[in-house]
Amino acid sequence: MKNKKQYAVIGLGRFGTSVAITLHKMGYEVLAIDSREERVQEFSDEVTHVVQADTTDEDTLSALGIRNFDVVVVAIGEDIQANILTTLQLKELGVPYIVTKAKNTLHGKMLEKMGADRVVYPERDMGQRVAHNLVSSNVMDYIELSPELGIVEVRVPKALVGKTLAETDLRAKFEINVVAIKREEVVIVPPLPSEKFTERDILVVVGGMKGIQRLEELA
Amino acid sequence: MKNKKQYAVIGLGRFGTSVAITLHKMGYEVLAIDSREERVQEFSDEVTHVVQADTTDEDTLSALGIRNFDVVVVAIGEDIQANILTTLQLKELGVPYIVTKAKNTLHGKMLEKMGADRVVYPERDMGQRVAHNLVSSNVMDYIELSPELGIVEVRVPKALVGKTLAETDLRAKFEINVVAIKREEVVIVPPLPSEKFTERDILVVVGGMKGIQRLEELA
Ligand SMILES: Nc1ncnc2c1ncn2[C@@H]1O[C@H](COP(=O)(O)OP(=O)(O)OP(=O)(O)O)[C@@H](O)[C@H]1O
Ligand SMILES: Nc1ncnc2c1ncn2[C@@H]1O[C@H](COP(=O)(O)OP(=O)(O)OP(=O)(O)O)[C@@H](O)[C@H]1O
Ligand SMILES: [Ca+2]
Ligand SMILES: [Ca+2]
Ligand SMILES: [Ca+2]
Ligand SMILES: [Ca+2]
Repeated sequence: MKNKKQYAVIGLGRFGTSVAITLHKMGYEVLAIDSREERVQEFSDEVTHVVQADTTDEDTLSALGIRNFDVVVVAIGEDIQANILTTLQLKELGVPYIVTKAKNTLHGKMLEKMGADRVVYPERDMGQRVAHNLVSSNVMDYIELSPELGIVEVRVPKALVGKTLAETDLRAKFEINVVAIKREEVVIVPPLPSEKFTERDILVVVGGMKGIQRLEELA
Repeated sequence: MKNKKQYAVIGLGRFGTSVAITLHKMGYEVLAIDSREERVQEFSDEVTHVVQADTTDEDTLSALGIRNFDVVVVAIGEDIQANILTTLQLKELGVPYIVTKAKNTLHGKMLEKMGADRVVYPERDMGQRVAHNLVSSNVMDYIELSPELGIVEVRVPKALVGKTLAETDLRAKFEINVVAIKREEVVIVPPLPSEKFTERDILVVVGGMKGIQRLEELA
């Protein structure tokens, strides 16, 4: 059996804290790093190791043995320069998988060019999710595929209940595809054209924003 | 046809900006408010109306006619006092649905007691999501459909590059469906059976956890 992956999280703001605590709860070893003494003290009971260090300094990162970690998450947010410099050092030190939090798309593109293996936009992504959720309390989850396309989980609009997938013809009318139906404890994937919608169904739909929105508005 | 809901977003940080832009893209009227002149100017092309105002001031909120909005999102983050005070004023002014961003659980509980209709924790929630996704490193995003079924975004395994969707026969072999392919700036949805996988493709796949895991292990 191979050893469990080792994680380090740099920056203990709200996002970094949540990543570190969740990994620790799942049973992984987590090294947490922040430059603020105060944050390091608050955090000392929460994960395996907490260290106060400024990660823009290459010697510091090296001394922490950061190259021995399988995954390093850079969760420094406001200070773009510290975020970028830290990511660059990690890359140079040969960390195999680097995840970095970006402030905006331009910042994210730079990080990708530098070799970040994954760039995340926590506030942007949650903003999109919350917006979709607000428009229709029927929308339960949302993933953006592109600015124009997404996947949503949506409660079945009343107008569709009792009809079959074929009858509603959502593909032609709204240019969306129902890829799964969640019904009580089961998930029907993929649904057949003859599948009839029932009252408490949750539809998982892929398609354009406009079509998804028109579906949401049917509710 | 009933009138569309009217939204206001207070605080144009990363989260508030994303909520406002997403609602605007979906065709809703959005009033965006921030106390920073600079942020208001940057934002003036993005939504319907942008106003510079300090929302801790009750007269200001009243003068903006905030009671006429159906939903108000308080996206002030760092300044807990401004966040709480704004939420309280909105409640007193009779706004029907108030969504507020919280910094931590204690803050969130206070907001609920004050009458916020929904409290959101964008950084905490995304931190949990990212942590879960990291545990398997090719997975970029994940929606659980049931304990056994999910939708994942996953980098194309090397073994599939150059083959067509039909040739790989993932549906029969792993009982999974590729519902979209993200390739550079475009998203192919739904992909045709003749679509050939290329090196940097990201696959959006629906199916059983076992099949998804076997796909991940191909990488
Ligand atoms: N050079 C650095 N080395 C180590 N830690 C740093 C460095 N610069 C900033 N940090 C830490 O990173 C943490 C997160 O940064 P910041 O608060 O700016 O991001 P944020 O995006 O607002 O966070 P969140 O939204 O997740 O709360 C802070 O606790 C900060 O002390
Ligand atoms: N009293 C206020 N009235 C109006 N806007 C305010 C007020 N106080 C703060 N804001 C604005 O709220 C916005 C978001 O606040 P802040 O940056 O503190 O939150 P945040 O949680 O770090 O944001 P994010 O993580 O979404 O980027 C800022 O643009 C700020 O100018
Ligand atoms: Ca911060
Ligand atoms: Ca790598
Ligand atoms: Ca901020
Ligand atoms: Ca934030």
